[in-house]
Amino acid sequence: MQQYFVKGEAISPVTIEDKDTIKHMFQVMRLAKGDQVVLVFDDGVKRLARVVNEAEYCFELLEDLPDQVELPVEVTIACGFPKGDKLEFLAQKTTELGASQLWAFPADWSVVKWDSKKLVKKVEKLQKIALGAAEQSKRNRVPEVTLFTHQADFLATLDSFDRILIAYEESAKEGERSALVEVLSSLSNGEKILFIFGPEGGLSPDEVAQFERKGGRKVGLGPRIMRAETAPLYALTSVSILRELM
Amino acid sequence: MQQYFVKGEAISPVTIEDKDTIKHMFQVMRLAKGDQVVLVFDDGVKRLARVVNEAEYCFELLEDLPDQVELPVEVTIACGFPKGDKLEFLAQKTTELGASQLWAFPADWSVVKWDSKKLVKKVEKLQKIALGAAEQSKRNRVPEVTLFTHQADFLATLDSFDRILIAYEESAKEGERSALVEVLSSLSNGEKILFIFGPEGGLSPDEVAQFERKGGRKVGLGPRIMRAETAPLYALTSVSILRELM
Repeated sequence: MQQYFVKGEAISPVTIEDKDTIKHMFQVMRLAKGDQVVLVFDDGVKRLARVVNEAEYCFELLEDLPDQVELPVEVTIACGFPKGDKLEFLAQKTTELGASQLWAFPADWSVVKWDSKKLVKKVEKLQKIALGAAEQSKRNRVPEVTLFTHQADFLATLDSFDRILIAYEESAKEGERSALVEVLSSLSNGEKILFIFGPEGGLSPDEVAQFERKGGRKVGLGPRIMRAETAPLYALTSVSILRELM
Repeated sequence: MQQYFVKGEAISPVTIEDKDTIKHMFQVMRLAKGDQVVLVFDDGVKRLARVVNEAEYCFELLEDLPDQVELPVEVTIACGFPKGDKLEFLAQKTTELGASQLWAFPADWSVVKWDSKKLVKKVEKLQKIALGAAEQSKRNRVPEVTLFTHQADFLATLDSFDRILIAYEESAKEGERSALVEVLSSLSNGEKILFIFGPEGGLSPDEVAQFERKGGRKVGLGPRIMRAETAPLYALTSVSILRELM
């Protein structure tokens, strides 16, 4: 069944106000009186809802659904600004794979330079992609997208995480294969995990040292070299395997 | 160090004959006498090699390298023909994540119809993408790409696998979360595993029944709904986590 996120509290009846959502509901899906959809409000609970008046975009809420598909730990994926449209790709794929937040920051070896104006537009675009992907993958929440103008602002947030994992290619080359499993197996549900990834050229030794001073731990993601936009998918899947399936 | 795949046996000195490889070596990378690269022949062993004559594309082999990054089981990813350029995406990403083979077949609910002529061209293109990705991710072998004209031909190959896993969305919805881990944990190294994925609309009940008659087992890939092109990445990562990292 089609799912939509609606900002605010769940109070029945509800009138949809977001233009894109209205367009998808009543122009693309052509919902009519009596049709049912799933609505997800700020509390992340999925609710079965029925159209009571399509001209006024009005739904009544029928029942809460038990469906809960969020990862048992909160995972933030933070990437050094990558080239091209890789963040767009990541906004979609990290949402499908259960990320709580997608962050990016100007890394020492990031090639692209984005000013504040560009960043505002880019966040808007990425947030829309995350919303669409969250609806399609039936998430209970939409990942929040944040792009940092300055690396220092990103560094300042590191204290708010329970664990910081630095994806480090050299770890893979050195044959270090177990740190990822070790850390993920030792988590408690509800912990906040930050995975940090470099841009195409990787993280600089300075960056790695800074992240380590903040408690970050280098982890390898298997023996193969992955592209900058593939490694976060591996990381999120590893959380799913170790925390959801095992 | 730059890595190239070279068809044939490793006999020193070696003259490179593939035009694309020559172009990348001597025009893009501008290799000159004395420069070193890694060459990988049909045996999958990486060998350090040095240019002895750039005008004749000639290298001498210096030493075998111990670097081995192949998954300990052979994984074939088979997808129902998906829409658009998703197979191109999959050729790159499944190579990065360690697949041995990428297959696709006309599934009951595949929307696209590709004739034999189109398939020949498409295989060629996908095989090139896999080659490039295998060089970049420093694989020991290049995944083989096969596109089946008829579903029956695909079905006829199923007997050649040790395990057949059917990625089945309904398994995820039914809360089935452990079959994937159970099967992957019970493998012996060297086994041949086939993962089957539907196109966007999924596998038909008929297809699932046929695969099950051939010994296939339905497995869920976590609780979230993934797009057709994302599920194979989750599957390959699960093999890496369970067979390489644990």
